[in-house]
Amino acid sequence: MTTAKYDVLGIGNAIFDILVQTDDAFLANQGMAKGAMQLIDETRAASIYSAMGPATQVSGGSAANTIVGVAAFGASAVYVGKVKDDQVGRLYSHDIRTANVTFTTPAATDGPATGCSYILITPDGERTMNTYLGAAQNLRPDDIDAEQVAASSITYLEGYLWDPAEAKNAFVKASEIAHGAKRTVALTLSDSFCVGRYRDEFLSLMRKNTIDLIFANEAELLSLYQSSDVDAALTQLRNDIGFAVVTRSEKGCVVVTKDKVTAVPAFPINKLVDTTGAGDLFAAGFLFGLVRGTSHEDAGRLGALAAAEVIQHVGARPQTSLKDLAQKHGLPV
Amino acid sequence: MTTAKYDVLGIGNAIFDILVQTDDAFLANQGMAKGAMQLIDETRAASIYSAMGPATQVSGGSAANTIVGVAAFGASAVYVGKVKDDQVGRLYSHDIRTANVTFTTPAATDGPATGCSYILITPDGERTMNTYLGAAQNLRPDDIDAEQVAASSITYLEGYLWDPAEAKNAFVKASEIAHGAKRTVALTLSDSFCVGRYRDEFLSLMRKNTIDLIFANEAELLSLYQSSDVDAALTQLRNDIGFAVVTRSEKGCVVVTKDKVTAVPAFPINKLVDTTGAGDLFAAGFLFGLVRGTSHEDAGRLGALAAAEVIQHVGARPQTSLKDLAQKHGLPV
Repeated sequence: MTTAKYDVLGIGNAIFDILVQTDDAFLANQGMAKGAMQLIDETRAASIYSAMGPATQVSGGSAANTIVGVAAFGASAVYVGKVKDDQVGRLYSHDIRTANVTFTTPAATDGPATGCSYILITPDGERTMNTYLGAAQNLRPDDIDAEQVAASSITYLEGYLWDPAEAKNAFVKASEIAHGAKRTVALTLSDSFCVGRYRDEFLSLMRKNTIDLIFANEAELLSLYQSSDVDAALTQLRNDIGFAVVTRSEKGCVVVTKDKVTAVPAFPINKLVDTTGAGDLFAAGFLFGLVRGTSHEDAGRLGALAAAEVIQHVGARPQTSLKDLAQKHGLPV
Repeated sequence: MTTAKYDVLGIGNAIFDILVQTDDAFLANQGMAKGAMQLIDETRAASIYSAMGPATQVSGGSAANTIVGVAAFGASAVYVGKVKDDQVGRLYSHDIRTANVTFTTPAATDGPATGCSYILITPDGERTMNTYLGAAQNLRPDDIDAEQVAASSITYLEGYLWDPAEAKNAFVKASEIAHGAKRTVALTLSDSFCVGRYRDEFLSLMRKNTIDLIFANEAELLSLYQSSDVDAALTQLRNDIGFAVVTRSEKGCVVVTKDKVTAVPAFPINKLVDTTGAGDLFAAGFLFGLVRGTSHEDAGRLGALAAAEVIQHVGARPQTSLKDLAQKHGLPV
């Protein structure tokens, strides 16, 4: 294994977020499952958008948010995802490149527009996502730059990639390249409904060691094992994979390996505004800790800190230097 | 004078805001005048944008922000402004229409893209704007719907309209129609540099009674009279116009008429995040009070309340119902 040129490379659906603060009645009227990510087509997107109030637009996409977070801690980061060369795609590309992320995936010149997620934020801070994949569904194995992947210490994949058919193949290709270069491959389970769609495949990826590290929240963990018992599911998880992090919202996270369980508390916040990106930014801090060689406890703290920053404002991208924030709180950077 | 169908009609440059939190060094490096609005061309826009960090996008435009605020108080509002029929223009049109604002100005089908302002927010909350007018410069007298203007209790104009040549003619046409229907015409001076460019014309508009009500902040007032003495400038203002409101940031506002001066304090805030839209939302609350027939003091309080809401988050559009907020604080709605 050679020295890694990049710390973390992330692959995901490149999605521009259109966020609006609303109420629970809107979700009920629209038949939306609160807290979930629902895939929608263009017709449904137009219908939801016309019913939604005035919005705030911020670049998003789960793995992209994580990678921007990794860069905001000061690590070297690469993103792979597909936008179209349209106005929104150019806003998206600007945002990720000026966040000091290497982003070389060619934008599509034809086909559907850059993907958008219509995100409803309820007064409790919960976000409910309606995603039109658009150009993101055309991420293909050819978009994986083998040299970039081989040169990255960790390759981070989002479970959402299992939705577009070709992206799944890009995912598998990247994993093979990473392992061929003796790198680590991490996966976030993304969403409990996404786990419901691909449960057997995700379990197979873990059991065949295609994945070395899993990120999941409690709902995703329970969905994975079709269980209602977190402790029992955690035991099953430890049988299936050697390294996992389970996030538990305000209860913090649990880092599990074959021989150790480390619980880390959440970071206190002043006001919960918008949970969009909470899991993504947790992963950013944890991955940053890993590549810097911190303890699991400190990695969990870095994750908790980044998650706390992002849930106190609208949008899933950090609005401050996470490196400065970590230093301010005495965490290793 | 017939009963007004609309409470307030606003005419302005339709501008999509691209906001980024940065530091004072960025402004210095880019040679930007802190707190000002600078007009830029496409080349300069590209240069600033590539130097800027990751951004948040929210619809803006001074008069548009005011009109959205008026609607957020529950009044009936109309906006006149020019976007292009492009992705950004469609985001813009969505935002203003779903804010319950009547917006019927046809989007341009060719010519420059929808206008954008590249807004730098420094840690003190101050905003510095770099505006590419784009499609907004093609607002023409033909875009003024005489029936809408005649049916609006107040027509509200932004000083920024003096920059694009045809928009100025649209402004004058609207003012004539409004006065022909015995309605009130209000103008915000917009920006001290804008006042510097059009001082004599703005004074002439006031002295010729083209304008009935002026909104200005202290810097704009001082620029108008090329003075460094606020009290002396206020005296001059009272000679030139019968009704004016001067905002003074954290010191509140002063409402002046020929026979009365009413000082109203600012509304307390928890944290200043971004002053973008402070003056626009103050005007929204004040205009709302006027059309509801409140005292000048209550109108000032409504303005202060709306300004306080908008400066506590990024972006110049309210993120909550101003009607609910006013009720919560015991103000008339």
